[in-house]
Amino acid sequence: MTCRKRLSATTAMMFAVALSAGLAPAAEAQDGSRTIDARSLPVPAAASEALRASIAAAPVVGAVGDETLSPQTDAEWAAFVTAADAAAGANLDAVAEQLGVSVERLEVDGVSVHRVVPNDVDPAHADHLFLYVHGGAYVLGGGDAGAQEAVVIASRARIPVLSIDYRMPPADPFPAAVDDVVAIYRHVLGNRSGKSVALGGTSAGGGLTLAAVHRFIELGLDVPGALYAGTPWADLTKTSDTLFSNEAVDRVLMTYDGLLSAAAHLYAGDRDLKHPLISPLYGDFDGFPPTYLISGTRDMLLSDTVRVHRKLRTAGAVAELNVYEGMSHADYLLVPASPESQQVYAELNAFLLRHLE
Amino acid sequence: MTCRKRLSATTAMMFAVALSAGLAPAAEAQDGSRTIDARSLPVPAAASEALRASIAAAPVVGAVGDETLSPQTDAEWAAFVTAADAAAGANLDAVAEQLGVSVERLEVDGVSVHRVVPNDVDPAHADHLFLYVHGGAYVLGGGDAGAQEAVVIASRARIPVLSIDYRMPPADPFPAAVDDVVAIYRHVLGNRSGKSVALGGTSAGGGLTLAAVHRFIELGLDVPGALYAGTPWADLTKTSDTLFSNEAVDRVLMTYDGLLSAAAHLYAGDRDLKHPLISPLYGDFDGFPPTYLISGTRDMLLSDTVRVHRKLRTAGAVAELNVYEGMSHADYLLVPASPESQQVYAELNAFLLRHLE
Repeated sequence: MTCRKRLSATTAMMFAVALSAGLAPAAEAQDGSRTIDARSLPVPAAASEALRASIAAAPVVGAVGDETLSPQTDAEWAAFVTAADAAAGANLDAVAEQLGVSVERLEVDGVSVHRVVPNDVDPAHADHLFLYVHGGAYVLGGGDAGAQEAVVIASRARIPVLSIDYRMPPADPFPAAVDDVVAIYRHVLGNRSGKSVALGGTSAGGGLTLAAVHRFIELGLDVPGALYAGTPWADLTKTSDTLFSNEAVDRVLMTYDGLLSAAAHLYAGDRDLKHPLISPLYGDFDGFPPTYLISGTRDMLLSDTVRVHRKLRTAGAVAELNVYEGMSHADYLLVPASPESQQVYAELNAFLLRHLE
Repeated sequence: MTCRKRLSATTAMMFAVALSAGLAPAAEAQDGSRTIDARSLPVPAAASEALRASIAAAPVVGAVGDETLSPQTDAEWAAFVTAADAAAGANLDAVAEQLGVSVERLEVDGVSVHRVVPNDVDPAHADHLFLYVHGGAYVLGGGDAGAQEAVVIASRARIPVLSIDYRMPPADPFPAAVDDVVAIYRHVLGNRSGKSVALGGTSAGGGLTLAAVHRFIELGLDVPGALYAGTPWADLTKTSDTLFSNEAVDRVLMTYDGLLSAAAHLYAGDRDLKHPLISPLYGDFDGFPPTYLISGTRDMLLSDTVRVHRKLRTAGAVAELNVYEGMSHADYLLVPASPESQQVYAELNAFLLRHLE
């Protein structure tokens, strides 16, 4: 008690002193790292029943992060990616049919796309288009695997979607992905205004969305009417606070020091990971359109998400941040029947209806 | 690699299966808790220099949470509170003078208040009033100690502030604090519209703000024009996810199982901690006014904050969530000269200007 009292008084004085002097306490010579003890993390009691059940069931099989995973050769990457994407894309048509959405595979200006159109387009979206950019750490999600969230968006927002199957490493590292998004966006601008187009995706898809808009602005193109950045991978370096604080807390990503780190370097090639078209957090957000952002309290990319939100807000953009209780990275995709997932897309749709012209 | 490939494919299929079946995986019989290993937590590299310096300097002396702290008797509580508040309130007048703010101590309808008025009120705020409700876990922050953030708000937003020195336990447990806020708000409504009044505060002050609005609605009073809920203590039970995931990561609160737990029970007395006027998260948010919410990635009350945000959004209220990189609970008060703190209050002011009439 005695010690306690003295300490609390000291804090109170620190506050008062800092206020009056306008000074923060000085840093120590050491790096200031602290050790956080091991802890037991219960299933989040205030998450929905569906999300809790999924979290309680098991550690996520197939979490993206894995310290033991680091494909070394192009052949190893190809084997890893092929197996994962084959499974993820296997039943796209069946899912689409069940959700009342048609899927057409096309090539537009040399880029593969999926045109995903709900059978009952909302009349309010009749003149709108959602350009979808898939996730997968810039290595996964090619082909049908990348169109799964596009189907969810088309179905829940009743909006036509064009899902971009952009080129990826090892065959095509940066800037191929950005170039492909630019090519499709230019094509789309040929017969509609930017303001009628939404652009967005989850994880690497959210990051690529932001990078593409940096590029649109460089090129003098009109920006889209609205952006969707679902837990965006906006900083490919190991910088963000929650890469550390939520390591292993996030049941999906688990750690940066596995697939994420390997994929970041494979994607960037010999470029600096802080290149603003690779890690869009380091770019200039002036002129960005209204942006809808999603993350969760357990998300290792919570920091990426909130850092983007701060950048957008200080640049004067409309930016709407939503953080969900107990959600790991992209849990709204992993547990799509959860109330959290329903809210994510219902509010995305309301955001689109508010901002698209 | 082989194992890895199989696992990733399984995840992908889980996603696809969940999508098509609309089912989440079943829960195990066990409680689903996971052990998170000890980790080293570096100073957040993307926080501002001022915040990083403060975090690197030392573990916060006088963090609110402390497992060893649990005053048992009224006399022990009084000794603890008196020492802490004496230090925190000691230099209020000097700070106020330096920041160009006058402080007057009054009693209004039996409730102690500080009237805190900037020397240069913004003409746009000439007809506005900020009703401020201090924090301190419902035990700290009495007297001058509770008016420190009121001075910051008056100074930075150039708005007149009335800071409510509400009664607290052990002498006056719930509902005394709520009753005092209601009494002052009723008094204020005698000569101005609710729409010209902002109500808000940090931590317990944020929670009490939300609880008071539940009570205003019960009583049929007009609601305020805008609310400020800075990292609100909105659920006094040990429920929120970040009470666990950010335990010890949050340098200010450190743990629930010390002062917070003890203070929650002292405040609630024999009432259920989930009473909606004690833990406002459990109330009905229909009819709530526009609300501005602040938290940080290291905040143990991040979950309380985002859960309130979700409740407000699903009730159709205007609610603006802002989460800061690397910030622990109320770090914007502990490091007031930081750019993060400047942003918090600049955007609070913009929010007030947008919503007050």
